[in-house]
Parts: sequence; C-alpha cells; structure tokens
Amino acid sequence: MLSWPLTVNRILEHAERWHGNREVISVGADGGIVRKTYAQCADRARRLSAALSDRGVRTGDRVATLAWNTGEHFEAWYAIMCIGAVCHTLNPRMDAPNLTRIAEHAGTRLLLVDPSLLPLAQAMHAACPTIEEIWVLGHSGDRTLNATDALIGEQQPAAWGGFGEEQAAGLCYTSGTAGDPKGVLYSHRANFLHTLMVIQPDVFGLRAIDTVLPIVPMFHANAWGLVFAAPAVGAKLVLPGRHLDGASLLRLIGEEKVSIAAAVPTVWQGLVDHADANGETLGPLARAVVGGAACLPSLLRRLADEHDLDVRHAWGMTEMSPLGTISAPTADTLALPEEARRAVEGAQGRPPLGVELRVETAGTPGSDAAGKLKIRGFAMIERYYGDSAPAGDDGGWFDTGDVARIDAHGFMHITDREKDVVKSGGEWISSQELEALAAEHCDVVHAAVVAADSKQWGERPLLIVQLLPGACCSDEDLLAQIAGSVPRWWLPDAVVRVDAMPLGLTGKIDKRALRDTYRDHLGSGA
Amino acid sequence: MLSWPLTVNRILEHAERWHGNREVISVGADGGIVRKTYAQCADRARRLSAALSDRGVRTGDRVATLAWNTGEHFEAWYAIMCIGAVCHTLNPRMDAPNLTRIAEHAGTRLLLVDPSLLPLAQAMHAACPTIEEIWVLGHSGDRTLNATDALIGEQQPAAWGGFGEEQAAGLCYTSGTAGDPKGVLYSHRANFLHTLMVIQPDVFGLRAIDTVLPIVPMFHANAWGLVFAAPAVGAKLVLPGRHLDGASLLRLIGEEKVSIAAAVPTVWQGLVDHADANGETLGPLARAVVGGAACLPSLLRRLADEHDLDVRHAWGMTEMSPLGTISAPTADTLALPEEARRAVEGAQGRPPLGVELRVETAGTPGSDAAGKLKIRGFAMIERYYGDSAPAGDDGGWFDTGDVARIDAHGFMHITDREKDVVKSGGEWISSQELEALAAEHCDVVHAAVVAADSKQWGERPLLIVQLLPGACCSDEDLLAQIAGSVPRWWLPDAVVRVDAMPLGLTGKIDKRALRDTYRDHLGSGA
Repeated sequence: MLSWPLTVNRILEHAERWHGNREVISVGADGGIVRKTYAQCADRARRLSAALSDRGVRTGDRVATLAWNTGEHFEAWYAIMCIGAVCHTLNPRMDAPNLTRIAEHAGTRLLLVDPSLLPLAQAMHAACPTIEEIWVLGHSGDRTLNATDALIGEQQPAAWGGFGEEQAAGLCYTSGTAGDPKGVLYSHRANFLHTLMVIQPDVFGLRAIDTVLPIVPMFHANAWGLVFAAPAVGAKLVLPGRHLDGASLLRLIGEEKVSIAAAVPTVWQGLVDHADANGETLGPLARAVVGGAACLPSLLRRLADEHDLDVRHAWGMTEMSPLGTISAPTADTLALPEEARRAVEGAQGRPPLGVELRVETAGTPGSDAAGKLKIRGFAMIERYYGDSAPAGDDGGWFDTGDVARIDAHGFMHITDREKDVVKSGGEWISSQELEALAAEHCDVVHAAVVAADSKQWGERPLLIVQLLPGACCSDEDLLAQIAGSVPRWWLPDAVVRVDAMPLGLTGKIDKRALRDTYRDHLGSGA
Repeated sequence: MLSWPLTVNRILEHAERWHGNREVISVGADGGIVRKTYAQCADRARRLSAALSDRGVRTGDRVATLAWNTGEHFEAWYAIMCIGAVCHTLNPRMDAPNLTRIAEHAGTRLLLVDPSLLPLAQAMHAACPTIEEIWVLGHSGDRTLNATDALIGEQQPAAWGGFGEEQAAGLCYTSGTAGDPKGVLYSHRANFLHTLMVIQPDVFGLRAIDTVLPIVPMFHANAWGLVFAAPAVGAKLVLPGRHLDGASLLRLIGEEKVSIAAAVPTVWQGLVDHADANGETLGPLARAVVGGAACLPSLLRRLADEHDLDVRHAWGMTEMSPLGTISAPTADTLALPEEARRAVEGAQGRPPLGVELRVETAGTPGSDAAGKLKIRGFAMIERYYGDSAPAGDDGGWFDTGDVARIDAHGFMHITDREKDVVKSGGEWISSQELEALAAEHCDVVHAAVVAADSKQWGERPLLIVQLLPGACCSDEDLLAQIAGSVPRWWLPDAVVRVDAMPLGLTGKIDKRALRDTYRDHLGSGA
C-alpha cells in the first residue's frame, strides 16, 4: 500500500481543506470571544512553524507551552508538532521549582506562555538552564519579549510533515503512582490512532455538525484527544480559556451551542450546581464525557436524568494518550431492568479496539473479582521519557496501579487505586466505593477513606469527611449511609472531621497526605 | 510508544473478548438461519487456521475464497488472514476461464468454495496450475473433498499474529478502467485503518447496539470494510448468503432487526420496490449506505423520505479499500433550504480523515469545475499486484478515471460516469474487453460498447459495430464471438449497426457521441 505516515499535521490539513470555515472559538483572559476558522488557525500555525524554524527549532527539539485552552495554544500545538518538534505541555497549577525540574529533565529549549502566566514562566526561565527564550502567546505588552502574533506577522507559511509517524509529537509529565514526575512522550502515530479511536460513536461520537468543548486541559493528557479529534471531523471547537466556573461554562455552552463537553467530575458538579441554583438548563448540550476521576453515581444520574444528557463515563491514563475505557450501552445492557442497567453503565465502561485490558486477580480467572488492572494498546507508552527500562512487563502489559473488576457484561469498574486499597485481614476493601457512598450524604462536601494501621487486621478503613458549615449529623448517621450497601466488615472503624480537605495539584483529594496524618489514628489497640 | 502492529486478528480478538456473545447470523443456501457468536466464529477460525498451517499454508501464501456472504466465509477470511496468509476473494459471477486467469496470476494455492459454487471451483481447479486443492466451506456431500467443518473438528486453535502490519491480508482483482484485471493487495494496516475510518459517526456510524447487514459482497472490495468494522465495535453481523432479492432481504431485516445495511443502488431499488408493492416498511432499518455506482436522486429521496432512512451516499474504489467519500450533513448544509440541501447531500460526499482527494481541472484551481478525480490515503494501493510501476503519479496521486467536481460546501459530485465502463447491477463490465473480442470477428471494421440505460440493472452494454461492406453476419454471430470469453452477464443486450463510426479528433471512436445517441436504445423495458 501507499506510504502514508500517520502524522498529526494531516489532521489540521484535513480540517483546513474540508472544514476550512468551521470555527475555532477561544475565550480570552477578559472573557471576550475570539473567533477564527480552521483555515485561519492552520495558516497562523504554519507561520508560527516558520518562526520556530528560524529560531533554530529542529526535529525532536522540545518546545514547551504553559497555557490554558485557547486558540493561541491550539495553534502553538500544531506549529510545534507539524515540523517534527515536541510540544511539551506544562501544568500552570504547578509551582516554578517543580515546573523547572520537569523542563530541565525534558531539555526544553523554548517556552511559549499565556500572558496571564508570564511571571511563572519568567521564574522558570531564570532557574532552568535549558530554556533559551520565552515567547508570549498572542500579544505581549512587554516589548522586550517576543510574542507570537508579531512573529506570525513576519513569516511565510512553513511546509509541514516530512518525518515518520514514530516521530515524537508531545511530551506530558505525570505524577504517576510514585512521587517523581515521569515524562510520557507521545508519537504522531499514537496521537493519530487515538484520534480515530475517540471519534467512534461508542466513544466520544464526534460529527462535523457537533460543537465540542474540551474543558479538560490541553496541558494534561492531550485534552483527552479532543484537540485532534474535533478538527479531524470538522467539529466546531470551543476553547474555554482559564475560567472554568459553572457560570462561565454555562454561558459559553448556551451562546456557542456546544453539543459535547468533556470534563472531570468536579467541573461537571460545578456546572449542574450552577444551573440548578439558577433554574437554568444546559441548553444545547447533548453529551457529557466524564473522566479523570471516578464519578459518583449520584452525579451521573443528575446529568442523565435531570439534564437529559447522553453521559459517557470514561477512564484513562496519561500513559495511554489517555483513553482506556468508556461506558456506552450494549445490546446486553439495553435489555436489563432500569436499575441494573444504571449500575452497569455507571461503570468506567469498555475498551475500544486498540486498547487491551485485563484484570489480574488472585482468585479464579474469569471471575468478576477485583484485581490489578493492566493494559496494552496502540497508543500506550513503551517507556517513560529518558528511562531505559520498559514501563510494562515482558508482554508489554502496563500496571496501571488501579484495582478493577470486570462484570458479566464486560464493563470495567475501577474499584480503587492500588495504593488506596485498605488491606484488612488479607482482603481488599475499596476506599472509592466507601467514599462514593459517604459522599451521597447531604451534609458531606468531601469524603475520603484511607487505611489506618491495625494491630489485629493489618489495616482498617478510616472515614475522613469535610461537612457543610453547620452540619449536625452524627458519626452514626454517616456510617449508616454506608452500611447496607457493603459487607459489614468494610464499615470504617472511625470517622474524622476536617475543616478543609487537602487537595493535590490537579484538584483531587491528597490521600497520601491524609494517610501520613492518620496512619496511627486507631492507636495500638485497633 | 509500545509496538502494537495494526493487524486484523486484533479485530476478531477484540470482538471475541469484549463482544463474545454478540451474534453472527448467516443465511444458508436453503434460506435457513445459522446463528453463531463472535466467540464461536473466532474459535472456528482459529481451528481453520490450524488446518491451513497443517496443509502447508505459510505467511504470504494466497488462499482463495469463492463464496457469498456467509458465516463460513467470514471465518475463512480471518482463518487465512490471521496467520499472515492472503485471502484472495473471487467473484462467483465471473466464468471459469477468467477466474482461472486471475487465480494463476495470483499464484493461488488453495481454493475455499461455497458448496453451491463447487462446479465452478472444479472447473478452475482443472485449468489452473497453481491451485493444489479445493476445500468446501462448511459441509460437503462429497467424501472425496475436504470440508472445513470436518477439518475444524480435528484441530486445536492456532495462535494468531506475529507478523508485521505491512503484511498482505487480502487480494481482490478489479477490472479497473482498462480491460485487464488487476490485483489489489490489501495490507493488514490498510484494512485496520480503513476499519477505524468507516466506524466514525459521519461515515457508517457503527455502534455496539447496531445490527449490520453487508449486502455488498465480501468477494469485492472487502464488503466495504463492514466485515471488519462490525466486529470492531461489537455490532451484530447479518450475512445474507446468495439470495439478495427484495423479499429475502426485507424478511431478514425485519426478523434480525437490522439497523444498518449497505448495498449498490440496484439492490436498494429492489428492496424498496418490493416493500412498496407489498405495503411493507423497512421496519427496524435506520441507515442506508448506498454506493458502488452513482445513485439516482429519485432513489435517494425514496429511501430518505418515504422510508425515513438516514441515507449515506458513498463513493470508493477497490484500490482504496474501498471507501473514498460519503455524504453526511455538515453545519453548512443544515443551514441550506430543503431543496438546496438535498442537491448537495445527494452527492457522493466528502472524504474522511485518511483520504486525500483532488480534482484536476483545466480551469482555475479552486473553482467547482469538473475534472479528473485523483486520490491518496492511508488505505490506498501503491501499485497493483505484480506490477513494478506505481499506480499513482510521483506524488502518489492515483488517477481514478472518474470525473468529478467539488461544490462550495466541499461535497464531491461524480459528474461523468467512468467514461467507458458499463455499470450493471453495481458491477463493472469492461467495454474495452468486449470491443476487443467483437473486433476479432472478420466482418467487423469498428466495434464500440457503450452503456445504455436499463431499468433493472442501471446500465447494460450495447454493442455498436461498423461492418465491412456486404458483410452478412447476424447479431447472434457477433455475440457468439464474445460469449465464452466473458461472464454471461457481460454479453451486450443488443447490437446496433452503423454505416460509419463517429470518430473524434484523434481518430478514436467518439464514445460520448455514441452514448448520447444510444442511451435510450434499450427502451423502458430493459
């Protein structure tokens, strides 16, 4: 067959040629809307590519971006990747020392930064020996700095492509299961295949007539591939900028007629809370992709029942580009009674073609017992950036660090993170399942279950809650919320109330900190 | 990234693991229904692979199938391809001499045949030096012949895979635009990528909850990729066997709750004619994929308006695995007035990502003037089987021989039919081959074959001859010159004698003028 490398320049070239007048909408720092088309973005990206080449950026060189989801960031991605350089996305919620450490490890040469993040970039520049220069994305008020708008204006469009599909396109650091950040280097091929995978009807289900809002950040795990998938089908792309509160997002959804949005549970929570509090609907929104953390059944139901959305609960990892599984109905689940169907479809779902997945249980193979979740696939890493050892085992299977079970309908349920599992008397207790049940109590803002040392059992679960101000429920009330839905011996031994739950860099509850603090909470007698 | 070759064994393995109890329905020669599951088919296919290996079939060896769309054919495909051998599909509507010529050119070693086609296979076996043995698909009444059911019963499942994604998987001969059949060798990679391409919502739009009926034959152009795409998403697959009349298909659609079917226009015509004549509906059918020949707007409207189907008008070529373009709404067309929208969406549509397409016009580039249609893509051939010269130009662009225009909405309209080819019932008849045969008659000065309209077949060939002065041969004599060398259904429906053949500027017969003159020659009854 014809040699036709799977490189991401072809994605924007396709959008430019066949969906050239379809819009890319961007929300600026002031909340104002910037409208461009795929054709305009492609032209600007090509000129920015030329500027990068002029600056000496060559195939394989790392160019970092420190930015929100904006049109300029979108153009920068393609400008960097389409000449074979590596777009190294940085998380603006991290601090300068951590970002500097990552940029130095990556050997990043240039740093393209959103104007709102310039102080952070300058701190990095001062500290990181590999960063040669900062470019401001869009327009800069500071004349001593290069800004992409000015650079683009001076250039002719560069030619794209001309490298192989195994060429690296993106680099994203993940905190992973251990402490030290590890680099995940995405190839063009993996990004392209992941794009084809997520477009499918049973995955995100993207059409040319859709308007797609990636609320998930471009700086982490490729915005779940949506920044490739939207141009691939010619969907209108809405990039929300930095303001991700319920009011801002709801206005954007309504005004731009967003049909599909993707976000972590906490953002969805904020969105429906705002809508409900103000008697508003989610308007044109038809489909909700929920991932990045396990979503509570109660939130899935609110989205599906009260807001009439087609809800897709997904699971993935930075290491897999990132999609692993997603929940969509099958002939089997459609035939189930309503409640049973919800219980199955509320899981993280099934792998599309291109993802292999297995659960290694200690018990009988083929049972639906929980065990270590391992994965392989066409968009999986082989090894972390700079590592000599493969990330997976001899067969290429990568240990996700998650604990999961697969039900009789083939739906995968993530039951816990392996490190969060409470190992009591040799059996596993799922902290996530307990948290989900506790969180359904109306007084609970955040709930976390961690293992505390137990002389008798090894570990016992401890329930830690942050309650609504003024809440007067008793510990017994909280535990009663859990009892009945889990085995008796899963019930937490104690309840701890905190004023503010510690949160990590990505907004998730910092269970490591909780474990360190409460490890000995049960005392020697437990 | 992890090495994860795109090979089609992964498709059936995925269906086996994640959609193992989803059905593959097959209609037998007697009209009876055979029900299996993907897990059962995969197991049978693995055992058949073992039988092939035992017989000495090795990576790259050609194994032919001569069969309708059946479960046994489905299993044979995967059995052959998944051990790295090449599944060479043969068209049962061709005659033994032509099939033999093709099989010999392909160097085909084994021939797997549907019981109903055994005489044709035996004629080939007798004439083709490369064919070592015939295996009957399923059960054979003749004990001297190997039959796959018996062979499968004796084997343990073979291991699949272990070869690269560039390995050839399939071989299909096309009459092409010139006369001589040419082999199109599909790689695993091309088949896999094509699968991901057609699953997309704006292409065939396949979901796990769908039931898919490929009426288009597996012996030609991969049944438009549906035999890969249905297991890839876990859709139920309905294989209709040999009886493709309206009554049989309508019953099948109703009984098996088919949601998506794909066929050439003449089959769709037969289906809706039958339904309308009997006051029936198309029942559960929701989507109609129409391709293989340009579909009349009147038929597209009947399907869409009277039968409430989501109609997707497609265009492709054997050389491109085969999908090139397909028509689905865009934001632009949705905004058009009804009639204008129909005119645009009635076209053959737009290329998905992975297909590049351009129209080379003599006039201004970018205008919507008609011109040569050229294509490239990830599922395009580089060269025909056994050829040393590339099939495309220096840039890889393949001249389709079609004439097309692209409208302001990016929809491609095939404006001229393939210049000389006669499209009868969705299949191509080479006018050049017929002309060459007719010209061998001693009384013939000039012979031309052109398409005349046929109500039943779309087009039928018409033989136009200029004879020597005083020649007294009959029409039957002229047709006898052709019969025997071509399939029976290739025989021209009528002979027209002219005193002087119209010649063009370069001295070639002006077939356009002939077509214009004789388009209606067969009358409304043909």
